Amino acid sequence: MKKTTVALTGVIVGLLVAFLLTVLDSPSSSAQSSQELSYGEERALIENLQARYLFALDFKDHDLYVTTFTPDGILDVGDGEIVGREAIKAAVANMPGGRHHIANIVLRIDGDRATGRSSWFHTGNDNPEGRMTIGGFGHYEDDLVKVDGEWLFARRRIYNEGNEAWAAPPGNPAW
Amino acid sequence: MKKTTVALTGVIVGLLVAFLLTVLDSPSSSAQSSQELSYGEERALIENLQARYLFALDFKDHDLYVTTFTPDGILDVGDGEIVGREAIKAAVANMPGGRHHIANIVLRIDGDRATGRSSWFHTGNDNPEGRMTIGGFGHYEDDLVKVDGEWLFARRRIYNEGNEAWAAPPGNPAW
Amino acid sequence: MKKTTVALTGVIVGLLVAFLLTVLDSPSSSAQSSQELSYGEERALIENLQARYLFALDFKDHDLYVTTFTPDGILDVGDGEIVGREAIKAAVANMPGGRHHIANIVLRIDGDRATGRSSWFHTGNDNPEGRMTIGGFGHYEDDLVKVDGEWLFARRRIYNEGNEAWAAPPGNPAW
Repeated sequence: MKKTTVALTGVIVGLLVAFLLTVLDSPSSSAQSSQELSYGEERALIENLQARYLFALDFKDHDLYVTTFTPDGILDVGDGEIVGREAIKAAVANMPGGRHHIANIVLRIDGDRATGRSSWFHTGNDNPEGRMTIGGFGHYEDDLVKVDGEWLFARRRIYNEGNEAWAAPPGNPAW
Repeated sequence: MKKTTVALTGVIVGLLVAFLLTVLDSPSSSAQSSQELSYGEERALIENLQARYLFALDFKDHDLYVTTFTPDGILDVGDGEIVGREAIKAAVANMPGGRHHIANIVLRIDGDRATGRSSWFHTGNDNPEGRMTIGGFGHYEDDLVKVDGEWLFARRRIYNEGNEAWAAPPGNPAW
Repeated sequence: MKKTTVALTGVIVGLLVAFLLTVLDSPSSSAQSSQELSYGEERALIENLQARYLFALDFKDHDLYVTTFTPDGILDVGDGEIVGREAIKAAVANMPGGRHHIANIVLRIDGDRATGRSSWFHTGNDNPEGRMTIGGFGHYEDDLVKVDGEWLFARRRIYNEGNEAWAAPPGNPAW
């Protein structure tokens, strides 16, 4: 019996270790923890954040909007840094109507930090004739951080080509 | 020989179980079955569906277009529910030209069900001068279901800011 | 001692094989090699390429722009094939200002080859009044190839609805 016991013990230990190795490396277990995910998984989460940000902005859900920033997050629309959620909330209170759309999302992801570049443009019809217009376009430069499994804006700089003071300097901001 | 047999049997059993655990958890095998994938994988499939929908719509591929809905799927453009593929096909037969574009895709995915919010806008030049115009903009509210490994629209509600009757009510439709 | 040695050797071999199987199938190790990733992972990489392409184009980073093509890559804007990076670089040197945006990305991925369809449109304000305009819209038809872990354009055909000679023929170019 002794030889059987030795072999069985070895096999059981082997199975346990194999199981642990498999579980630790599987995508589902990774998703539940705060550990680093693959590029595609992190990108999907950040794309969702970018979209939630614009719905909250355009539908004037300012309480939700500011939660897309870290508590000490920074928004800069070209007139200097606005720091922290309360200040950001006050700054976007009087945004005009219409809708903003995001495209061209470039993302470099390194652990719980990410750097983003993307383009935006605005559609609206807030004029006497209700005529459809492009209200502006430009690009975003973002620093993102993952806190407790959730990506947030640590800093968003908005460039707007509709106003010379807010327009981007020459040179590719992406890579 | 007996001790060798015992040890070898144990090793073979261990390898088989380890192999099965590994295969069952790998992304590639998951993709071939109908089991739940990660958020990023499901989101990628739904983004592809959203894009295929618009190509089929704008290029008047109505037979393909209706296959992006479930057989009893519902389309509501603001004038009430259009139910089922044949009725939906008839409803989009006279769509104007130009192109629709989707952006800001917010997705909550729970197994084989998903809830989506996204923005759309239309570009066209179907006027005497061939002038480029924004033909409309608004947002989509979608209920999606995964059937035999393929995501489909169970219900799509379209809001269009170009017509007061079709415009969105106040309040953030996303989260 | 002999039976113990045999059993232990077997278990160690089993663990090594189990470890190798696990590591070879994990997403992180896959990302570092040139092996095939999941649909979501490959799609994320291609979306990033599409975005980097447009930043390089609009910000006139022509040296970077051409590296999104294979060395013998082909660009066709409707006037015939432009072959190779140097020729492509010369062709885009005099692009007008403003910004291009991509949407509706349909992707079929098969190993290290992919076929893409997507829509684009242009926003600009390069006119005496600085008025915001849609400068054009159309769609892309792409053949992509993954070389040393990086997706590149092997061939991009651009259709532009702003010019009859460059407009798309009837029929859905996607699927």
